[in-house]
Amino acid sequence: MTAAPAPAQPLARYAAWRRAGDFVFLSGVIAVDPAKKLIVRGFDDIPPEAQQLLGRTGEFSTDIKEGPILAQSWFVLNSIKAVIESAGGQMADVFKLVQYFKNLDHFPHYSRVRKLFFTGEPPVSTVVEVSAMMPTADVLLEVEATAWLPLKNT
Amino acid sequence: MTAAPAPAQPLARYAAWRRAGDFVFLSGVIAVDPAKKLIVRGFDDIPPEAQQLLGRTGEFSTDIKEGPILAQSWFVLNSIKAVIESAGGQMADVFKLVQYFKNLDHFPHYSRVRKLFFTGEPPVSTVVEVSAMMPTADVLLEVEATAWLPLKNT
Amino acid sequence: MTAAPAPAQPLARYAAWRRAGDFVFLSGVIAVDPAKKLIVRGFDDIPPEAQQLLGRTGEFSTDIKEGPILAQSWFVLNSIKAVIESAGGQMADVFKLVQYFKNLDHFPHYSRVRKLFFTGEPPVSTVVEVSAMMPTADVLLEVEATAWLPLKNT
Amino acid sequence: MTAAPAPAQPLARYAAWRRAGDFVFLSGVIAVDPAKKLIVRGFDDIPPEAQQLLGRTGEFSTDIKEGPILAQSWFVLNSIKAVIESAGGQMADVFKLVQYFKNLDHFPHYSRVRKLFFTGEPPVSTVVEVSAMMPTADVLLEVEATAWLPLKNT
Amino acid sequence: MTAAPAPAQPLARYAAWRRAGDFVFLSGVIAVDPAKKLIVRGFDDIPPEAQQLLGRTGEFSTDIKEGPILAQSWFVLNSIKAVIESAGGQMADVFKLVQYFKNLDHFPHYSRVRKLFFTGEPPVSTVVEVSAMMPTADVLLEVEATAWLPLKNT
Amino acid sequence: MTAAPAPAQPLARYAAWRRAGDFVFLSGVIAVDPAKKLIVRGFDDIPPEAQQLLGRTGEFSTDIKEGPILAQSWFVLNSIKAVIESAGGQMADVFKLVQYFKNLDHFPHYSRVRKLFFTGEPPVSTVVEVSAMMPTADVLLEVEATAWLPLKNT
Amino acid sequence: MTAAPAPAQPLARYAAWRRAGDFVFLSGVIAVDPAKKLIVRGFDDIPPEAQQLLGRTGEFSTDIKEGPILAQSWFVLNSIKAVIESAGGQMADVFKLVQYFKNLDHFPHYSRVRKLFFTGEPPVSTVVEVSAMMPTADVLLEVEATAWLPLKNT
Amino acid sequence: MTAAPAPAQPLARYAAWRRAGDFVFLSGVIAVDPAKKLIVRGFDDIPPEAQQLLGRTGEFSTDIKEGPILAQSWFVLNSIKAVIESAGGQMADVFKLVQYFKNLDHFPHYSRVRKLFFTGEPPVSTVVEVSAMMPTADVLLEVEATAWLPLKNT
Amino acid sequence: MTAAPAPAQPLARYAAWRRAGDFVFLSGVIAVDPAKKLIVRGFDDIPPEAQQLLGRTGEFSTDIKEGPILAQSWFVLNSIKAVIESAGGQMADVFKLVQYFKNLDHFPHYSRVRKLFFTGEPPVSTVVEVSAMMPTADVLLEVEATAWLPLKNT
Amino acid sequence: MTAAPAPAQPLARYAAWRRAGDFVFLSGVIAVDPAKKLIVRGFDDIPPEAQQLLGRTGEFSTDIKEGPILAQSWFVLNSIKAVIESAGGQMADVFKLVQYFKNLDHFPHYSRVRKLFFTGEPPVSTVVEVSAMMPTADVLLEVEATAWLPLKNT
Amino acid sequence: MTAAPAPAQPLARYAAWRRAGDFVFLSGVIAVDPAKKLIVRGFDDIPPEAQQLLGRTGEFSTDIKEGPILAQSWFVLNSIKAVIESAGGQMADVFKLVQYFKNLDHFPHYSRVRKLFFTGEPPVSTVVEVSAMMPTADVLLEVEATAWLPLKNT
Amino acid sequence: MTAAPAPAQPLARYAAWRRAGDFVFLSGVIAVDPAKKLIVRGFDDIPPEAQQLLGRTGEFSTDIKEGPILAQSWFVLNSIKAVIESAGGQMADVFKLVQYFKNLDHFPHYSRVRKLFFTGEPPVSTVVEVSAMMPTADVLLEVEATAWLPLKNT
Repeated sequence: MTAAPAPAQPLARYAAWRRAGDFVFLSGVIAVDPAKKLIVRGFDDIPPEAQQLLGRTGEFSTDIKEGPILAQSWFVLNSIKAVIESAGGQMADVFKLVQYFKNLDHFPHYSRVRKLFFTGEPPVSTVVEVSAMMPTADVLLEVEATAWLPLKNT
Repeated sequence: MTAAPAPAQPLARYAAWRRAGDFVFLSGVIAVDPAKKLIVRGFDDIPPEAQQLLGRTGEFSTDIKEGPILAQSWFVLNSIKAVIESAGGQMADVFKLVQYFKNLDHFPHYSRVRKLFFTGEPPVSTVVEVSAMMPTADVLLEVEATAWLPLKNT
Repeated sequence: MTAAPAPAQPLARYAAWRRAGDFVFLSGVIAVDPAKKLIVRGFDDIPPEAQQLLGRTGEFSTDIKEGPILAQSWFVLNSIKAVIESAGGQMADVFKLVQYFKNLDHFPHYSRVRKLFFTGEPPVSTVVEVSAMMPTADVLLEVEATAWLPLKNT
Repeated sequence: MTAAPAPAQPLARYAAWRRAGDFVFLSGVIAVDPAKKLIVRGFDDIPPEAQQLLGRTGEFSTDIKEGPILAQSWFVLNSIKAVIESAGGQMADVFKLVQYFKNLDHFPHYSRVRKLFFTGEPPVSTVVEVSAMMPTADVLLEVEATAWLPLKNT
Repeated sequence: MTAAPAPAQPLARYAAWRRAGDFVFLSGVIAVDPAKKLIVRGFDDIPPEAQQLLGRTGEFSTDIKEGPILAQSWFVLNSIKAVIESAGGQMADVFKLVQYFKNLDHFPHYSRVRKLFFTGEPPVSTVVEVSAMMPTADVLLEVEATAWLPLKNT
Repeated sequence: MTAAPAPAQPLARYAAWRRAGDFVFLSGVIAVDPAKKLIVRGFDDIPPEAQQLLGRTGEFSTDIKEGPILAQSWFVLNSIKAVIESAGGQMADVFKLVQYFKNLDHFPHYSRVRKLFFTGEPPVSTVVEVSAMMPTADVLLEVEATAWLPLKNT
Repeated sequence: MTAAPAPAQPLARYAAWRRAGDFVFLSGVIAVDPAKKLIVRGFDDIPPEAQQLLGRTGEFSTDIKEGPILAQSWFVLNSIKAVIESAGGQMADVFKLVQYFKNLDHFPHYSRVRKLFFTGEPPVSTVVEVSAMMPTADVLLEVEATAWLPLKNT
Repeated sequence: MTAAPAPAQPLARYAAWRRAGDFVFLSGVIAVDPAKKLIVRGFDDIPPEAQQLLGRTGEFSTDIKEGPILAQSWFVLNSIKAVIESAGGQMADVFKLVQYFKNLDHFPHYSRVRKLFFTGEPPVSTVVEVSAMMPTADVLLEVEATAWLPLKNT
Repeated sequence: MTAAPAPAQPLARYAAWRRAGDFVFLSGVIAVDPAKKLIVRGFDDIPPEAQQLLGRTGEFSTDIKEGPILAQSWFVLNSIKAVIESAGGQMADVFKLVQYFKNLDHFPHYSRVRKLFFTGEPPVSTVVEVSAMMPTADVLLEVEATAWLPLKNT
Repeated sequence: MTAAPAPAQPLARYAAWRRAGDFVFLSGVIAVDPAKKLIVRGFDDIPPEAQQLLGRTGEFSTDIKEGPILAQSWFVLNSIKAVIESAGGQMADVFKLVQYFKNLDHFPHYSRVRKLFFTGEPPVSTVVEVSAMMPTADVLLEVEATAWLPLKNT
Repeated sequence: MTAAPAPAQPLARYAAWRRAGDFVFLSGVIAVDPAKKLIVRGFDDIPPEAQQLLGRTGEFSTDIKEGPILAQSWFVLNSIKAVIESAGGQMADVFKLVQYFKNLDHFPHYSRVRKLFFTGEPPVSTVVEVSAMMPTADVLLEVEATAWLPLKNT
Repeated sequence: MTAAPAPAQPLARYAAWRRAGDFVFLSGVIAVDPAKKLIVRGFDDIPPEAQQLLGRTGEFSTDIKEGPILAQSWFVLNSIKAVIESAGGQMADVFKLVQYFKNLDHFPHYSRVRKLFFTGEPPVSTVVEVSAMMPTADVLLEVEATAWLPLKNT
């Protein structure tokens, strides 16, 4: 799991990404900022412009229901974007995603957010629902990305 | 998830396969034909010759119990075969499978079907049981395949 | 799933590892020795020196609680080490791990064992909790490893 | 429960609406057409223009997840509209709604549909999640409406 | 909740009915006689003529299964009848019912009893299944009635 | 659902109250202040004088068990009082309550609080236990009130 | 299990009935027609005259609740009647029934249907509730009958 | 189910026993006396001499735990004895028992009681645990007996 | 329950079989050898030739999943064969089977084994799933057989 | 467990109290009177003056919810008082309590009753929630007391 | 927990007993022999003379059901006896027992065994059912004993 | 329950400790500071030096899993130490512990912490898992200690 690309307090001892030949492999990413010990639980845990992008309604009942998955989806994909950029690539280089959900009823919300990050050719995709993810039951989503980044491009 | 290799109504916005260097990565495949809005639920949803291949007994009680997993196993592996062929390769080029089951008691049935598709050197394999898969609870199996297809071969 | 690197009675028909270009892909590994029909259930199923390495206390209550996950973690990672060595590489060549747990409360124990096997640059890592793994409910952990092993090195 | 305002095969022996003084009281409405013995289960059970209005994506995975609650929300509110019109009023005369859900995670979807039917002053509203509704477990929503329709207006 | 129309030991501090303009609103009624501390649990808790009316078979197995819901249905509707009569009206003045069940499989039994009490124009009706009702788990049904009783009629 | 009578950030798009003839109908009220994004979870979320009125003991174990339902009961009924006053009436004009609980073991606590707000003729009352209420699982109670407020009085 | 007495596609390899001395033993019968691959799920799956006999109300809510057990009860007993007649006897020769239910609350419905088939001396009877029956969860009832049919009578 | 051999209020419409050739078949027997509407729930529901025979300890905790199964076992077997005697036979003529339990941990208790009734050659026996029996959840045991009673003996 | 026909340590006090007229009735048989205190749990608990007959694959994962039901099916039917032979008959004389399963998904496996034992006219058959069987949760299957064995034949 | 201090029919073979040096140890006490075979289930099972002391409201709904724990709390502590008095001491000599609850939401009710019995220096206290207590599921509370009663004082 | 009084491999770091003044306090005892890593699971894990004392029947079905609790009860009380003797006392000096069960239905069995060890004045006793005990789910019982052993006696 | 030894806001009305002769008895202690209304939920709720002592890793995933039980174990034992010191003794005087866990998988963590507090002769120990403890579900552990503190020593 990797939460933020910046050199932060790690979740555990693992690498945020590793290059192998022309590939860049990322750890599974969750909506956690270990430096702040923050688990993203809703709209208030992401920047205002992201809230707007995701369509926060301002109605308490709707936002409290949709906020957690929308905010985590944005945070996770935005973190992947930051990681791949720190590795010298960009989001379009990501060609494969494995996506683990806690509740697959969340898929349509995630799917709408994913389209904002992949405007060109979409990646291949695997989607399953698992029992739990690290570190706590608040985590709704984990995404593992792989990018194709030939060395000449970096 | 990819159900059929033909350019059909997609399940969601993702690619059926993507080439990266000498590799071809496939999306996770389930027993769904989105063009027909069909989820494979038993022997009747696959071609007669496939039914025969899988050993349909003609006894209602046995077929209704074994049909779902046998038919889905065949449909999924046959879809992978079609995808890899559309990418210019063949089943023998698939060297890795990640297999998600809803109920691991189904493994022996799947395993027998898999041998029909991999008659040569078998792929590496990972098998886990997950809570659910897209799009509904009827889905018993998702398989993610990776192929090695050096560019000279395509 | 691959339990032991030696050419043993397989769990099912699949390869312990496959090379594709400069990569070596391993099947998911569990703490099972199919030749002995043994599922590792505690400290007594691993060698004494491994027990000591993992900090067996000799107190029945503590060991019976911690033994299963510690012993399986060691067995799985040691099996991966043996597989990668049989493929001509070493543990440091493993750059990616996907780890499936039956209970994520076991993660800290596994994490301590993993550090013993990866003393240099750590691999990328994905961690999820799934419902079950093959072959029985005694299995607490499955690890799928990928290594970067350029052909000149083998 | 009232499904369709037209004089159809009733669900049971009750009135679709009753006037009492200046008020029109409606039976609770569910997404069922008893004349056709149809329970609305997704987009395919409502008219195409309604599907478009509700934002059917054409992606199988998303539509199969969101379709049931969106289609039932539309069908129920549209039925209420037809009933109140058959009583000589219009949707704006409905000033009170009691809404029963099978799963309150569906609320944001319903809420968006409700805004399409109440463009002026919104009604008062009560929302609770109950164990089940008539007639089967496919029913996700029941809405009981009350209208203020002074006799001079009819 | 109101169990008996007579001025009895209340279940709690609330009114059995209240007039507001031309309307008479009743509290939700359950099959309890608080004066006797009796919760109706079967045929033996209602008068013999009511038992006959409801079709008590005299076969132990059938009566012990159907008795609780039939007897409660009769008791509740009979109590509503008594309350509305004490308010100067009659059952035909009841134009609206909200009916809460513990198990909706009981609906057909209740429905048959309701027809005995509403022989003319039926009321509007809302039916839902809830988790529990006051005061104990023996209660299978609660009915809230509203009547239209213009003052000139009383 | 209506949490606070003041013109605040709404929970969703609905009216806090609507007049229809001589009646004032209120939305279901829960213990939430959407302006503050606050869900009342215990004594600390209500004013000190309300805490005293409800009999806060100052003993941690007792207050943490009884606080949630007592504080929510007070907050909800106090909000209803504020809404009805803003509509030109007073608590005594409320003649009907429908009360939804998450756990009916809370009823005696609520009942004692209700007596503080209805010192004259009590309203009619319906009480049921439901699976959940909006917006989260912290909500223990929802109350829907109706008042009789002839126009000459406002 | 035997569904239809005619020589049809069997459910599995077993006999519909076997004579042993003066006795005729039947296989357990369920409401399935294997030739049509039909599992009886409600009134629509049995002939109109049977529907009428069983008291179909024409009200959707009631029929959808009572239909499954009534229709299966009729289908099963009618099949037994056909089997015993094909063996040269009649329903009155059946002297013993073992009845397996999925839900014993269905017993009164079944019992009423059974009386229609056994108008003379009733058989001995055993009734239990089991976890499941073949072939799917739609099956609510299985009945095993035994008849006394001395050879001179056939 | 047959509770008492005397001509009593039946549980349902069935025979307590039926002769077929040299066999006497009994209905399944439970610990219920339909004439008294009594379900045997403990030692107090059986005669004192039976209590003593079964080893009632007089210690409240032990008797309240063991009483229900011991008393039902005695009542059921004693009823079978009475039925077979009314048919002109005796307990030794019973050669087959099918025994349904609600909880198989009760088997040793039942087994000790059974030995008191079958002192000679024991019958053949089938024992299973089922979900429930008629008429209520208090019933722990149902026993179906068959006797061999050649006509010359009666 | 009867495990082995030889005069062994009984499971409880009952007969393995009893003759009544021309019939031989067997106790329910489970896969237990009480003399060895052995409960059959997989292929290793039955003779090698039986393993081969049942199609043991030698693949650990498949055999550990299918072994328990296949081995118990063989053991139970083989025991019935031995019992009936000790009574002077043969398997073809068995004309009736009542089969209790712990999990009906096991039926196809059992059905294939049963065909090996009944190569001629098949018996009548009843199949249900029950909660449990004696003596422990390892038991997956119990079969009660009845044979027709006229005295002149013995 | 000790229910009543008087020499009564014991629950099992144990002492109500034992002196050891200057200490008096009591058995765990539950709200059971074994002589009367009575388990206290509500206000009606304790004396009127105790009912009044505990604040019985006379409202059926409230009393039926609060009665069981209040009455058991009083009965248990009153029994402890009687036991310690029969040992020559008084309630103030009890310095330690271990309290087992079936549901810790009952704690505030118990705590208020306990204060009535311990008006001086309170005892040390341990409180846990357990799965069950003897003899039946009606028991909500068990209290084990220890007293300091130097021999000179007796 | 203390399993065996002899100086063995401890379960954890704690004392088997401690003297404090004239009292001897024992750790909670379970049916485990840590030196042998043995958890008592039935009759075969205790000496033959103990088996006989406890009434082993030799019938597999009964012994496999009753054996675990009887054997653990004996083992635990025998261990307590050994511990108290090693402290210089005897069983009659034990005046207090706290008994934790996993399933209180086991109480009558334990109670009979306890009487064998306490033939004189019985101890005070507390009995509760808890969720689990150390070290595994096989443990059915834990007993904590206290003895009065004035120093002059040792 | 006692959280902090200092004279603080009590959890309820009970004593933190009581002397009886040469013994000091403590109330059960949980990881709560009632003065601060704090329930210890992880490392951040205990002092930094305690965190270090317990081996906080600084890795988010590990610390968030192990922190709650380690921090509560330290807090509870440290509170016991403070209480016994305020009573004039020291930790070595504590000779008996009864330990209640919510999840016995936490035992090894607690056991390691306990050794830090008991470096000399260990106390006797009882360990069970219970359903819940006061005041909320966050509490993982309750420990009841007893000390031997002859009066001459205080």
